[in-house]
Amino acid sequence: MFESLFMLLCAGISLYYQESDFQALMISSAITFIVGSVAWALTHKVEKDLIKREGYVVVTLVWIIISIFGSLPYMLSGAIPDFTNAFFETISGFTTTGASVISNIEALPHGILFWRSITHLIGGMGIVVLAVAILPYFGFGGMQLFNAEVSGVTSVKLHPRVARTAKSLWGIYVALIAIETCFLLFGGMPLFDALCHSFGTIASGGFSTKNDSIAGYSPYIQYVIIVFMIFSGTNFTLFYYAWKGKWKKVKSNREFIVYLGVIVLATLLISFTLSFLDHFPGEPSFRNAFFQVTSIITSTGFVTADYTLWHPYLIFIIFLLMFSGGCAGSTSGGIKILRHHILFRNTVLEFKRMTHPLAIIPLKIRGKVISTDIVYKVMAFLIMYLVFFCIGAFLLTLIGLDMNSAMGAVATSMGGIGPGLGSVGPMNNFYAVPDLGKWVLSFLMLLGRLELFSVLILLSPDFWKNH
Amino acid sequence: MFESLFMLLCAGISLYYQESDFQALMISSAITFIVGSVAWALTHKVEKDLIKREGYVVVTLVWIIISIFGSLPYMLSGAIPDFTNAFFETISGFTTTGASVISNIEALPHGILFWRSITHLIGGMGIVVLAVAILPYFGFGGMQLFNAEVSGVTSVKLHPRVARTAKSLWGIYVALIAIETCFLLFGGMPLFDALCHSFGTIASGGFSTKNDSIAGYSPYIQYVIIVFMIFSGTNFTLFYYAWKGKWKKVKSNREFIVYLGVIVLATLLISFTLSFLDHFPGEPSFRNAFFQVTSIITSTGFVTADYTLWHPYLIFIIFLLMFSGGCAGSTSGGIKILRHHILFRNTVLEFKRMTHPLAIIPLKIRGKVISTDIVYKVMAFLIMYLVFFCIGAFLLTLIGLDMNSAMGAVATSMGGIGPGLGSVGPMNNFYAVPDLGKWVLSFLMLLGRLELFSVLILLSPDFWKNH
Repeated sequence: MFESLFMLLCAGISLYYQESDFQALMISSAITFIVGSVAWALTHKVEKDLIKREGYVVVTLVWIIISIFGSLPYMLSGAIPDFTNAFFETISGFTTTGASVISNIEALPHGILFWRSITHLIGGMGIVVLAVAILPYFGFGGMQLFNAEVSGVTSVKLHPRVARTAKSLWGIYVALIAIETCFLLFGGMPLFDALCHSFGTIASGGFSTKNDSIAGYSPYIQYVIIVFMIFSGTNFTLFYYAWKGKWKKVKSNREFIVYLGVIVLATLLISFTLSFLDHFPGEPSFRNAFFQVTSIITSTGFVTADYTLWHPYLIFIIFLLMFSGGCAGSTSGGIKILRHHILFRNTVLEFKRMTHPLAIIPLKIRGKVISTDIVYKVMAFLIMYLVFFCIGAFLLTLIGLDMNSAMGAVATSMGGIGPGLGSVGPMNNFYAVPDLGKWVLSFLMLLGRLELFSVLILLSPDFWKNH
Repeated sequence: MFESLFMLLCAGISLYYQESDFQALMISSAITFIVGSVAWALTHKVEKDLIKREGYVVVTLVWIIISIFGSLPYMLSGAIPDFTNAFFETISGFTTTGASVISNIEALPHGILFWRSITHLIGGMGIVVLAVAILPYFGFGGMQLFNAEVSGVTSVKLHPRVARTAKSLWGIYVALIAIETCFLLFGGMPLFDALCHSFGTIASGGFSTKNDSIAGYSPYIQYVIIVFMIFSGTNFTLFYYAWKGKWKKVKSNREFIVYLGVIVLATLLISFTLSFLDHFPGEPSFRNAFFQVTSIITSTGFVTADYTLWHPYLIFIIFLLMFSGGCAGSTSGGIKILRHHILFRNTVLEFKRMTHPLAIIPLKIRGKVISTDIVYKVMAFLIMYLVFFCIGAFLLTLIGLDMNSAMGAVATSMGGIGPGLGSVGPMNNFYAVPDLGKWVLSFLMLLGRLELFSVLILLSPDFWKNH
């Protein structure tokens, strides 16, 4: 029912522009609303709070269901007639991946384009978080849902009451979008495009309203988007602390420092290579490098340059950045800096443990001991991530993609980025991938967005046993 | 001094065949012996047992020193005139990688060919293990050396006295080589080639005496080599148990079962594809698939078919197998099945831990609890392996290799396999890789052979602090 309201909003846009997609959006909205109402009528009287296990089922199902209904506008308007492609585009939007099957984006009517960007808006902070923030009647179950969607490494808790936390997160999210929109308007971008690009940036999505993504825009606009992409990859609790004036907490966040360090390092390396070895002029090289590094690491996926034409080792850097992700608690996808940091620090400690075999040396980050439970969980996350990366790449090579393209497509889908390598690089799209491959990638996008466990636990036999 | 004796043996071979490399081998042997004697004279009076930390330094240095002297026969005979290539070939031999820079192997004189295979023989079970087995005067320090070379996942201990364990291991090793040689002689292979191929098989090395590796030999010989490659990837303690009649211990070894399972699965998948989709005849397809799977998983690197011409998804399987390795305690390289098994089982348990958040669920393999220490160590191993894989592939792309070839070259070097992908595939060799790349790969081979920690701990600042 939430979703149908957003579709109605798009129908309003369509009405304003007097375009042909009005009917399609109205029908989609009506179908979604009716099905939603029936489901609500059938279930709202059940008085039972959710237990933890049910939270995982609900969240995963919600994401699948909204993606099915979200495909309606594309199919009914004829923008993407067949279900597989429409579903791929929708789940790519909701999971803020931004991988597209549409070649001529500029030919789409405004209502559909807006719906495409709205899927980013909804998915970026999470539909369940939104529900928990707005609806009054979530008790303890709200927490279960919240944690299943915003799994992160450690749980986000700005306030003892989960509804307040959810409200704060959505508040920060909407505020960032509003501020970016103003900056883009100031750079001469029309309101419609400014909104769509702001959704795409802050949700770390990557759908643009232009065929060449951000490449055609002025340097000012590109720098604005770079800055807000960096924000989208930042732990949102840091904005909360900044807002409350607790700057010390922001400055002492180790993950944030590492995150900025990686961006600076990769940008310098790439811009140095582009400007000296390839003799491109300095500032545009720096800008393209900075933009692409930020876009990939934050899993946004906007494009200003075709990195597949760069030197092989720069392509390899981009490929590695696809596994990085931004900070935990941000809208970015991927493995996330905090997990890398924990695993790397623990690995380095292992050498200390080897030279002092009898000492017990726990992992500490900024003086705080990280328990074995968390290290185990992070490790399990990495292993599962790699296992599904291998399975996914295997399935895509089975379908006929070459190894490079397959690995690129899987890395970009699981990381929620958008453009991949080879035949699914930034200047191509996913239309040519066979249908079966699109379903595999759709699954991987959902898996990545819900940080593996919420989806995978449903596949564990132990989960379904009576407890 | 040991090494010079082996060189003398090769000089004997050269004398027998009346070839030109006799002088080169004699001079190499003399230089090596003289330097060794001087070093021994200077140090043998120091009465001080080794502490654990010194074990790591000694083992790593021994491997580097024998590789430097081992290059002499190639350089002096003119087979490989320059040091970089000669060192690469030697360390590739000692680490039982089997990656070569020589294009026309059949043109080499017998003495040099034998030396090339002898490096496998020495490196397969380990020069330090050999020293501990034969020399009488190792006290407690022998154990430190032994553990630094045979790091494994848990320590190998067939007997309380380390010298006895080392003797047993070398006994099994030599026995397997002898048996394989007999089987190969029975198939009509000349004694010289049979010995060289047996060294290459049991040490999981991969140097052949033929330009087309094993492809030109009869199916009988290929099957013999397959069987003995499987043996080379088996935990050597299992042979010990089998010898002692403890079959129950062999049959209950979970790692061994998983190892055989992976071989069967990959073989079936590949031979099915080759025979049905590509319409190759059945038996040769099965044989090629079986041979290549076994050769890669045991990190031997013999070749009967150019797998880079297969379907992309078969190449991807081969690429993944490069990270597998055989059983812990075998002569094979790579990550090893036991480590994969521990990490995978622990990851699956994580789901159980999620559904029962309050229970403490330790990892058990066949009823035996695996301690957190070991899980941490295995995890650190995997992370370091991936980190050095990424660094290595990055450096090779920096030098100018394409991403595929770079990843293949690094995977095959760290895993101690031999042939890679792309421009360093089974039908090419490493001659064309720039010098800097050869040094990077040489380092990675050593890193992989000594299972990371023994080398990396020397780079840790904590190691050099006064304790």
